Amino acid sequence: MSNPDRLPHVVIVGGGFAGLWATRALARDAVRITLVDRGNHHLFQPLLYQVATAGLSAPDIAAPLRHILRGQRNVEVRLAEVHGIDRTSKTLTLADGDTLDYDTLVLASGATHAYFGNDQWAAHAPGLKTLDDALRLRRKLLLAFERAEAETDPARCAAWLSFAIVGGGPTGVELAGTLAEIARHTLRSEFRNIDPALARVRLIEAGPRVLSSFPDDLSERARRQLEKLGVEVLTGTPVGDIDAEGFRLGDTHVPARTIVWAAGVAASPLGALLDTPRDRAGRVQVEPDLRVPGLPDVFVAGDLASVQCDGRPVPGVAPAAKQMGRHVAGAIRARLRGEPTRPFVYRDFGNLATIGRMAAVVHLGRLKLSGVVAWWFWLIAHVFFLIGFRNRVVVLLNWTWAYWSYQRAARIIFGPPDDVASRAPEADTHAAEHAGPRTDARADRRFG
Amino acid sequence: MSNPDRLPHVVIVGGGFAGLWATRALARDAVRITLVDRGNHHLFQPLLYQVATAGLSAPDIAAPLRHILRGQRNVEVRLAEVHGIDRTSKTLTLADGDTLDYDTLVLASGATHAYFGNDQWAAHAPGLKTLDDALRLRRKLLLAFERAEAETDPARCAAWLSFAIVGGGPTGVELAGTLAEIARHTLRSEFRNIDPALARVRLIEAGPRVLSSFPDDLSERARRQLEKLGVEVLTGTPVGDIDAEGFRLGDTHVPARTIVWAAGVAASPLGALLDTPRDRAGRVQVEPDLRVPGLPDVFVAGDLASVQCDGRPVPGVAPAAKQMGRHVAGAIRARLRGEPTRPFVYRDFGNLATIGRMAAVVHLGRLKLSGVVAWWFWLIAHVFFLIGFRNRVVVLLNWTWAYWSYQRAARIIFGPPDDVASRAPEADTHAAEHAGPRTDARADRRFG
Repeated sequence: MSNPDRLPHVVIVGGGFAGLWATRALARDAVRITLVDRGNHHLFQPLLYQVATAGLSAPDIAAPLRHILRGQRNVEVRLAEVHGIDRTSKTLTLADGDTLDYDTLVLASGATHAYFGNDQWAAHAPGLKTLDDALRLRRKLLLAFERAEAETDPARCAAWLSFAIVGGGPTGVELAGTLAEIARHTLRSEFRNIDPALARVRLIEAGPRVLSSFPDDLSERARRQLEKLGVEVLTGTPVGDIDAEGFRLGDTHVPARTIVWAAGVAASPLGALLDTPRDRAGRVQVEPDLRVPGLPDVFVAGDLASVQCDGRPVPGVAPAAKQMGRHVAGAIRARLRGEPTRPFVYRDFGNLATIGRMAAVVHLGRLKLSGVVAWWFWLIAHVFFLIGFRNRVVVLLNWTWAYWSYQRAARIIFGPPDDVASRAPEADTHAAEHAGPRTDARADRRFG
Repeated sequence: MSNPDRLPHVVIVGGGFAGLWATRALARDAVRITLVDRGNHHLFQPLLYQVATAGLSAPDIAAPLRHILRGQRNVEVRLAEVHGIDRTSKTLTLADGDTLDYDTLVLASGATHAYFGNDQWAAHAPGLKTLDDALRLRRKLLLAFERAEAETDPARCAAWLSFAIVGGGPTGVELAGTLAEIARHTLRSEFRNIDPALARVRLIEAGPRVLSSFPDDLSERARRQLEKLGVEVLTGTPVGDIDAEGFRLGDTHVPARTIVWAAGVAASPLGALLDTPRDRAGRVQVEPDLRVPGLPDVFVAGDLASVQCDGRPVPGVAPAAKQMGRHVAGAIRARLRGEPTRPFVYRDFGNLATIGRMAAVVHLGRLKLSGVVAWWFWLIAHVFFLIGFRNRVVVLLNWTWAYWSYQRAARIIFGPPDDVASRAPEADTHAAEHAGPRTDARADRRFG
């Protein structure tokens, strides 16, 4: 390689599936890469619900970016938050005041949860996008049973044992199924004043069915599996309002002290810094080759990108993000060689969602599975895709133990007391403004 | 059993070694037990430094009290903080306003760290007593290397790579040895602008030697092992002052952005609520049978109790706490039968401390070990004493992996940004006032 300071500088923002896969795909190219992320880790988001429901520890589903990339000598990892993008001077401003000049910029900062303009709900119905979200939610779920145990007023006790998950996409379904299992099995015989099995877990979906990205019959099977686990599935029922005491459904106020938001995502606010057209969810509209119109040196990949493929929008799932990351790397390589870039083609390998103990649905081409077989399929696929040998072994071990014992290894409450109710997630008002009623189509439901 | 509401009510405050062992020892007695703890878990404190140094996850060394005690039907677990004790009406007041009447009270709320009247140091030199402390410290340690990597000024960069551990007891020695290993091995080749191996790790002890509870020759061997790992051991050098930039040693101000406090412990502030004589560290002075003078229905056990045995103070270690817990259970049983209580006798089974990779010291009667053999001894003993089958397997697996790979599984930064510098630990000013220069004689250095 020539003098590294003379090499083209590629700045990649975001160490999720899109950013990390782009970085790794450029390992042998004559570029100098800076990977910027505000966290120090790559997160395997598809298993985030397991951290929230105390089945896995935070480090089980995350690996330090520096460690993943330690052998790739053309990468420098930078822990920092991006505050500004100057399109003209091609400079990023970081929160600590430093600047980064780029020759090529890859924006892959992903998505956050959105409340469709009801940001006041954030305080009462937290979402699930980061490890901090998951740990806060874990704390909230575990504390609800503790509060119920200490409560002598029957109505208040029932409100603490009333759980609602808003949004019937993959995240909502997973959370509802797992929570029902915790109430019915995990906590059995641990309380003296309450019966955790009397907890009500409601899954509320505004649309006509859960898991709407699946065929009708698999949605129906998912619903039946949820109901078997003890979840009350309410479809076609949009939530009217959410407050500290519960939520409104039509004319009824339903008491529920624990509400989880799994109903919508919006693009990361960094997309707005480019000052180019965005879709209703705040995602940056890109050319077929994933470049930003009018900004030939800027690519957008992953959940932040709004792109069509065969006339259909590419879903916001992990395999799509990985494919986009690799595509961007190829496009950067082509441009360095003076070759034309190619349009991004999304390969959809299938769709799978887990529901709970031994319950899942799988849709791969003409193959449709549900129940135990689908669950094994899901388990193997997810453990296989976990980054890092150690994580896979630990996660498998935890699950084996959890399966036989009905126990959950990480049922430990920590963190500052009572931060749950008071702290709203880092929802960006600007992004939320643009948020459309996009179904939760979270990372890695599909293969790729 | 007769009507449970008519049974004597034993309230045990604290789910640490003393409280939990007392609770379990009363499993077959005709009493009604309420175990009160402000956390939901029993913590295996001897491995807390592993969580702080990212070797283990928080749930690896903790288990929910409810789960441990689920089969013991005479126990109710209550997640609550005690705010007041009324000796006359025999009532506890909880932070949530509820009250608990007791027939017998067992106070076992342990110890916290103390700054010998220098509470302003708490913000710059956090201590290590709870899981929250450990996660905060982990974040601080990992962020120091990130800051150094981003810093262009050489002096500031060196300050970020300068670590100091104050206190040469078991905790200080473990932290120093592990931190040196992280700098020299774990982070190798992960950074581009700094060489983590150039980090300076200083262990500062005011007394003449480290591990002062061991014989002279083992202290000396511990020092040599620390130095081999890359730790600079400074003995006979009390710290003069601590601020955000470093610490003062004699006439010199030593730059260090990361300082850890492992120099002193003080009793939990709950001891003061009894309004009976306490020693300089705030521990409650008890009768030989562990009852509080003048309060025949109140026992104190564990680190909160100040008791002599064979003319020597019983050390604040886990085996002593377990033995006291069991003794209190026996004394309660004797009183119910109208029999006299017996004095507590501490059985000292030995003393061991780990230093780092393959380095430890062991002192059991006439047996003295150091180095590799001592390390294996320490490892097996500690994993054996971990509560819960699952934890043992996971911890062993993590260690095996860490040993061969030099990696640390939990190197994940989470928690609110920059809470490290701004938030002081929950140091109780009252307890700190009474804190004497007690050496860190932390839990479970001895067998029992």
